[in-house]
Amino acid sequence: MTKLAIVYHSGYGHTAKVAEHVATGARSVSGVEVDVLKADDLASAEEGPWDTLAAADGIIFGSPTYMGSSSSVFKAFSEASSKIWMNGGWRDKIAAGFTNSGSLAGDKLNTLQELMILAGQHGMIWANYGAFPGYNTSTSDFEGAWNRAGHMVGLGTQALTDLPADQTPDQADLETSEDFGKRIGEITRRWVAGKS
Amino acid sequence: MTKLAIVYHSGYGHTAKVAEHVATGARSVSGVEVDVLKADDLASAEEGPWDTLAAADGIIFGSPTYMGSSSSVFKAFSEASSKIWMNGGWRDKIAAGFTNSGSLAGDKLNTLQELMILAGQHGMIWANYGAFPGYNTSTSDFEGAWNRAGHMVGLGTQALTDLPADQTPDQADLETSEDFGKRIGEITRRWVAGKS
Amino acid sequence: MTKLAIVYHSGYGHTAKVAEHVATGARSVSGVEVDVLKADDLASAEEGPWDTLAAADGIIFGSPTYMGSSSSVFKAFSEASSKIWMNGGWRDKIAAGFTNSGSLAGDKLNTLQELMILAGQHGMIWANYGAFPGYNTSTSDFEGAWNRAGHMVGLGTQALTDLPADQTPDQADLETSEDFGKRIGEITRRWVAGKS
Amino acid sequence: MTKLAIVYHSGYGHTAKVAEHVATGARSVSGVEVDVLKADDLASAEEGPWDTLAAADGIIFGSPTYMGSSSSVFKAFSEASSKIWMNGGWRDKIAAGFTNSGSLAGDKLNTLQELMILAGQHGMIWANYGAFPGYNTSTSDFEGAWNRAGHMVGLGTQALTDLPADQTPDQADLETSEDFGKRIGEITRRWVAGKS
Repeated sequence: MTKLAIVYHSGYGHTAKVAEHVATGARSVSGVEVDVLKADDLASAEEGPWDTLAAADGIIFGSPTYMGSSSSVFKAFSEASSKIWMNGGWRDKIAAGFTNSGSLAGDKLNTLQELMILAGQHGMIWANYGAFPGYNTSTSDFEGAWNRAGHMVGLGTQALTDLPADQTPDQADLETSEDFGKRIGEITRRWVAGKS
Repeated sequence: MTKLAIVYHSGYGHTAKVAEHVATGARSVSGVEVDVLKADDLASAEEGPWDTLAAADGIIFGSPTYMGSSSSVFKAFSEASSKIWMNGGWRDKIAAGFTNSGSLAGDKLNTLQELMILAGQHGMIWANYGAFPGYNTSTSDFEGAWNRAGHMVGLGTQALTDLPADQTPDQADLETSEDFGKRIGEITRRWVAGKS
Repeated sequence: MTKLAIVYHSGYGHTAKVAEHVATGARSVSGVEVDVLKADDLASAEEGPWDTLAAADGIIFGSPTYMGSSSSVFKAFSEASSKIWMNGGWRDKIAAGFTNSGSLAGDKLNTLQELMILAGQHGMIWANYGAFPGYNTSTSDFEGAWNRAGHMVGLGTQALTDLPADQTPDQADLETSEDFGKRIGEITRRWVAGKS
Repeated sequence: MTKLAIVYHSGYGHTAKVAEHVATGARSVSGVEVDVLKADDLASAEEGPWDTLAAADGIIFGSPTYMGSSSSVFKAFSEASSKIWMNGGWRDKIAAGFTNSGSLAGDKLNTLQELMILAGQHGMIWANYGAFPGYNTSTSDFEGAWNRAGHMVGLGTQALTDLPADQTPDQADLETSEDFGKRIGEITRRWVAGKS
């Protein structure tokens, strides 16, 4: 089996919803098991499901974008992982990332870059999303387009700030989330298969 | 008078159109003069309107986003400015930036960050845009919203890739461009006034 | 008077030491008052010295670089500032940033870019450092060179991880910190003077 | 065989020297063949050794850092690759990057991030370096330490600006370059082996 873990923080439920759909996509890949963990439970190096992460072949990081970067809860997890960094514990695992915010662009790229740097520190292998951007005049139904805002290094979704999590992000973003999860599942499986 | 210069590159006319509207906005500020220069004419340190830039109180950089960063024509200008860097020629001038691409987000932030780094190398003062993002359910008319994708450190516009420059970017983005230009004009004027 | 505030977090005392030297440099500018605040005291929007920040003409952000970005304590402050963001409370204030880590480069630029994005969200004016990098064969005394690692958008210092805060960062970095503080003080004073 | 390609630009010979050492490291991995290409020869989509890149299992991008980002010659190559982007031609290839500049830090991270974004646009898999930073008081021989400046997402080397390419970068950086090349060779080989 290929083991994938998703570690996310969600302030108001929107990012949690995205995480679920990423998990659904990843689980659709034959031979891939997915654990979904809350960054809230990994705020210190001393407790929390660190063993699950140690056993994972790949880790998908997810955080809302607050003031242009990851949330402090996610950052506490990131910081707590420095003990693992010292021993190279996540070296050569697959990594990927997603973020959600109220705007379509909204400096979400900066959060994704922060997640890429975290993966870089750990010496992980970053799986870019790279899905073709979905929106132009010929795909005029904005709602139905995948990767509609055109985020390439990871998954970027939009939750309208004046709607609760049961109404946003929209269907296009949730389907994109599944597509993203499927891609990371496939990449991780291939990476595991290549181990000599 | 406060002197502002815009240096831009445009591959297909979309970024040129944005540059014009930025200029219009800046010129609407009393006491502000604007020169619009093409990066194409500033590809080497030996020729081109470098004197105009030396005399400017602020410089607004503009480039399309190609493959996630500035165009090679813009980059040639940026590179040619290294001779000025050695003498601190642009130190303490105001700087700002804009970029255009086919997607709403589309890694445009990375281009803006590249422009910020260029300004940082020169020791310039970066004027962030910071306009409140324009799009949620209560401002449902997407076309009429300013800063609709939510770019904060500079101006980000979208040109639909299957439309010519006379039809795109749309009116919302062009009005945002004028608002951005006006803001940079005001900031530069204040910065000039503060010089002892 | 020109009012400058420094908000920093320090995990082991190194960044606190840098903050002190930045303050010393800024205070050397005639007419500039400096308040030094701990991010730890500004973790929620409901309490802490927010009024000091509201009254400041410029804010200097400082954080250690942990796993390639700001610390979670700093991030909690950044997040808490979102209430101010909604009302544009820091719009048009001067902003600048510094960071410290164990390596010379060590992804510190990513932390500085995070601080720039925070300033961008707030619509602040970013004062780049832009000091000429201090290290080559002709300035062979590495210890005596200012801006020895060549950070341009802000101040980057190095604290050797196996030394306590009373022995590191070294004298070169502390003098660079004072030079940086002086520069931000001068820029803020000019910005205040230009207000009509 | 696993095929790896290095595409680099070098203005004064320093980055070329790094590229050679990266190639040497990659070639030390059993079963890995390496082609070294100049970005200068790939400035347009119409001519140049694009077939070599199409056939490669991984591509290592290399550029000097000029004014805080890649060189215009490298950027022309990056731009020319947009035709390949449209057809997903490099999707799922391994990618990695290196850069050289006169400073130890010197905004090199921004160049590496630009290369990461390029890889992201193409949907490639980014192989982070992640070598433990080599410099503290207990490894006091600065010259002998690998990854001495602590670049994590790729390789960062320093060429003293007042020395020719036969004297700089120093031995520590050249050995680090070989270590980096070896790592990317091993990762690419594993990725190829995992293909079903």
